Amino acid sequence: MLSPFRFLVAYVPKLHGLAQVRYASQVLPQLSAEKYNVKRKNYANVHNSDINYFKSILGEERVLTDKDEVMPFNTDWLRSCRGQSQVVLKPKSTEEVSQILSYCNKKCLAVCPQGGNTGLVGGSVPVYDEIVINLMLMNKIISLDEISGALVCESGCVLENLDTYVREHNLIMPLDLGAKGSCQIGGNISTNAGGLRLLRYGNLHGSVLGLEAVKADGTVIDCLRSLKKDNTGYHLKHLFIGSEGTLGVVTKVAIHCPVLPKAVTLGFFGVKSFENILELYNSAKSSLGEILSAFEMADNTAITHTVKNLNLTNPIADYPFYVLVETHGSNEVHDGEKLSSFLEKEMQSGLILDGTVTSEPAKMHSIWNIRESIAASFLVEGYVFKYDVSLPQKHYYEIVPKLKQRLGDKASSVIGYGHVGDGNIHINVTVPQYNKEVLSLLEPFIFEEVSKVKGSVSAEHGIGFRKPQFIHFSKDSTTLDLMRDLKQLMDPNGILNPYKVLPDTN
Amino acid sequence: MLSPFRFLVAYVPKLHGLAQVRYASQVLPQLSAEKYNVKRKNYANVHNSDINYFKSILGEERVLTDKDEVMPFNTDWLRSCRGQSQVVLKPKSTEEVSQILSYCNKKCLAVCPQGGNTGLVGGSVPVYDEIVINLMLMNKIISLDEISGALVCESGCVLENLDTYVREHNLIMPLDLGAKGSCQIGGNISTNAGGLRLLRYGNLHGSVLGLEAVKADGTVIDCLRSLKKDNTGYHLKHLFIGSEGTLGVVTKVAIHCPVLPKAVTLGFFGVKSFENILELYNSAKSSLGEILSAFEMADNTAITHTVKNLNLTNPIADYPFYVLVETHGSNEVHDGEKLSSFLEKEMQSGLILDGTVTSEPAKMHSIWNIRESIAASFLVEGYVFKYDVSLPQKHYYEIVPKLKQRLGDKASSVIGYGHVGDGNIHINVTVPQYNKEVLSLLEPFIFEEVSKVKGSVSAEHGIGFRKPQFIHFSKDSTTLDLMRDLKQLMDPNGILNPYKVLPDTN
Repeated sequence: MLSPFRFLVAYVPKLHGLAQVRYASQVLPQLSAEKYNVKRKNYANVHNSDINYFKSILGEERVLTDKDEVMPFNTDWLRSCRGQSQVVLKPKSTEEVSQILSYCNKKCLAVCPQGGNTGLVGGSVPVYDEIVINLMLMNKIISLDEISGALVCESGCVLENLDTYVREHNLIMPLDLGAKGSCQIGGNISTNAGGLRLLRYGNLHGSVLGLEAVKADGTVIDCLRSLKKDNTGYHLKHLFIGSEGTLGVVTKVAIHCPVLPKAVTLGFFGVKSFENILELYNSAKSSLGEILSAFEMADNTAITHTVKNLNLTNPIADYPFYVLVETHGSNEVHDGEKLSSFLEKEMQSGLILDGTVTSEPAKMHSIWNIRESIAASFLVEGYVFKYDVSLPQKHYYEIVPKLKQRLGDKASSVIGYGHVGDGNIHINVTVPQYNKEVLSLLEPFIFEEVSKVKGSVSAEHGIGFRKPQFIHFSKDSTTLDLMRDLKQLMDPNGILNPYKVLPDTN
Repeated sequence: MLSPFRFLVAYVPKLHGLAQVRYASQVLPQLSAEKYNVKRKNYANVHNSDINYFKSILGEERVLTDKDEVMPFNTDWLRSCRGQSQVVLKPKSTEEVSQILSYCNKKCLAVCPQGGNTGLVGGSVPVYDEIVINLMLMNKIISLDEISGALVCESGCVLENLDTYVREHNLIMPLDLGAKGSCQIGGNISTNAGGLRLLRYGNLHGSVLGLEAVKADGTVIDCLRSLKKDNTGYHLKHLFIGSEGTLGVVTKVAIHCPVLPKAVTLGFFGVKSFENILELYNSAKSSLGEILSAFEMADNTAITHTVKNLNLTNPIADYPFYVLVETHGSNEVHDGEKLSSFLEKEMQSGLILDGTVTSEPAKMHSIWNIRESIAASFLVEGYVFKYDVSLPQKHYYEIVPKLKQRLGDKASSVIGYGHVGDGNIHINVTVPQYNKEVLSLLEPFIFEEVSKVKGSVSAEHGIGFRKPQFIHFSKDSTTLDLMRDLKQLMDPNGILNPYKVLPDTN
């Protein structure tokens, strides 16, 4: 059931600013607590005395309590979740985060740490009245070591801003994702974001050199070293990478930035079948070797609808599948030769039906733009059920035709696209509007299928609010017990991002 | 004080087998408990009933109790530590490890998990009478996915054997270290081993895909997924990477193997000063880019003594410093061109005084052999104090001349060598025999110097038995508290590898 129109009317007069226009132009999403039938846990309610305490630390202007101002922080990017928080805090320092948490822990007030709020599993918005701690004002770059490539910054820095900064110093950020213009590095780390070039630059557990985080009780855990090697005791930083703000709030980050590639080339190819994509991937690993930086695929529907919905241009004709191959290298001539010989070979073999290769920044941008817009472009067609799973590569695409058959004309579209090199496929199912019948056909079916071939029910998006009930498809009960033990150890009152990640025991 | 001769005499008659010859030919090291003045903690003593229980699980032949048979498992590779264990267990399966630990936990019997026993901080040998659980018989390769590069194996597999195996499938192991012929993958993971090519293939937190470990109470934690991306809850595997067997015993491993490079080239250069090495490193990062797989340095003493002590041949003349640059690439012509143009440029600039470049396997092997033999070669000159620290690169070599000045003729040599690309230097101080005066000049001096520039007092060797008292130079008290909390959570009776990693609180 969608939220009633009167809410919208009530909000409109006070709306201002770009972020809020989006909300004004659409009906508000249903409250998460109602939509997903969640019971409020036994936390304290926020009182005026609490607000006054927060104002005493942060000042008036960094404690938002006006309903309209608070609203965008309650709603997720996908508009599938809406919380009921009445207060948003915007700390500017680790000390302020520590003071806030220490207070909330003592008072048993639940909090929701929030970065750029671009998550896809409802992890970054409240469910009930959790206090939002938004890190956006902790956006200072602290240092950059140009020899080692170690960047140290606050966790609220926007990924794209960091990338722009380090590029001026001949480096790049080791991760890149569609949401880079809004997502924050602290959120990236808290969700162990993967993204487009994991294939080449590895995951965040490998590239985060150190971090600083605040525990639920306000204790600051300082693992902010910027060394590549440091084997002095337990590697605590990994507790905070991917635990989605349930074990602590990441406040500072040291991350290794690879050298800016001198030559970048992009190929966009039409391919006949998924089997051919897999053969092409093997060939690319061998022929392009160390310069291969991305190997992405999307099916015909994913590309053609994106191009149509967003009025973009597909540089090649209609093909059953599309593959995007990117190289990052240090020598344009060498890279060009490698890519040309790969192309020549695979056009002859028939694995590539047609394609385009470019090193022109504008053309590369427009091709990447198609790929990166897929996630958002289907939102204009209705409600999108989104899945993000990992599978052994040989089973990668099987689920899409299975779903098409299962759903028939109940879905307007079923698409598959993603990071072939990482075994990570995104499956989007679009329906005219949110529909419980379709949901019941999708879940737990998809997760059961993934579990059968030992895949992961959440490859890179995390568990958040939307998936705790499916985590058992990827984690057994002893592993879940250890997760609960860790949560109990780190956050005994359970104030950090409740209703998320850990499934209820009952 | 060295151990008395009578021990040696007592052991000699029963010695047999290659591993034991080494011990027969030398005086036994002093007992760790005496040498380092450690008090036995309040664990139960091993009784005959315990031995009988172990025999009931493992059979007679996998429970060693004969003193001479047990001896090699009590002494570390560096011969700086000697434990007093009376029993060595050799499980063949996870279930056996689980049964052993469950029993020991109930009886409060301390255990020392042991891999290839090549560690350099005394972490892999007992201190008192801890039961040794040696994983050498858990050496099965379980599966290899040639498309994704995911290798799954038991933790007792020797690194070099794994590398040989995956090379037959066009892949390589993502880590390589001098001890590869003896070290086991489970030990590599438990110590977060770094090694020679971390620069290129990243660290184990990045390349370990999954693992299975047994907690102190015998609970099996199954995180043995072989997916590149899996964001389903806490990333528990990292608890076991680098915690040196104090939080659990690693029993199975899934690890990502990169593609075997089609072209490998090695350069060995003479350089005038460390400043020039740093300039050369920057130049190599830029000119060789993605094919740079190792950038190692050693000072004159390190190389000349190694060559002399082990009767090797230095392919170039005498220079103040030596640099080893390796490339791994997919195209021999391209890589050759990159390396030649790098060489030409830097011979002209004067950063490289002289050198040799080769792609011949035998020649590459003999150069790598010099580099990899440095650690062992000084043992023939006497007792070696070994340090393994990380430093910001600009401070990398400063400590060596400082130590030379501080020690004067009290040390026969002070050398520095290591992984420049990772900021990781190994410092070895050789003395005719173990000498407390020299020790007091070295420690805590070295650690204080490292701490001043925010380095790490243990870059890749770990903390083990030898360094808990220095961990505070790299970890603050709140971080140590969290480590203790984790230890208490995972191993409340403290049976796993006691006297290691965590400093005593008193």
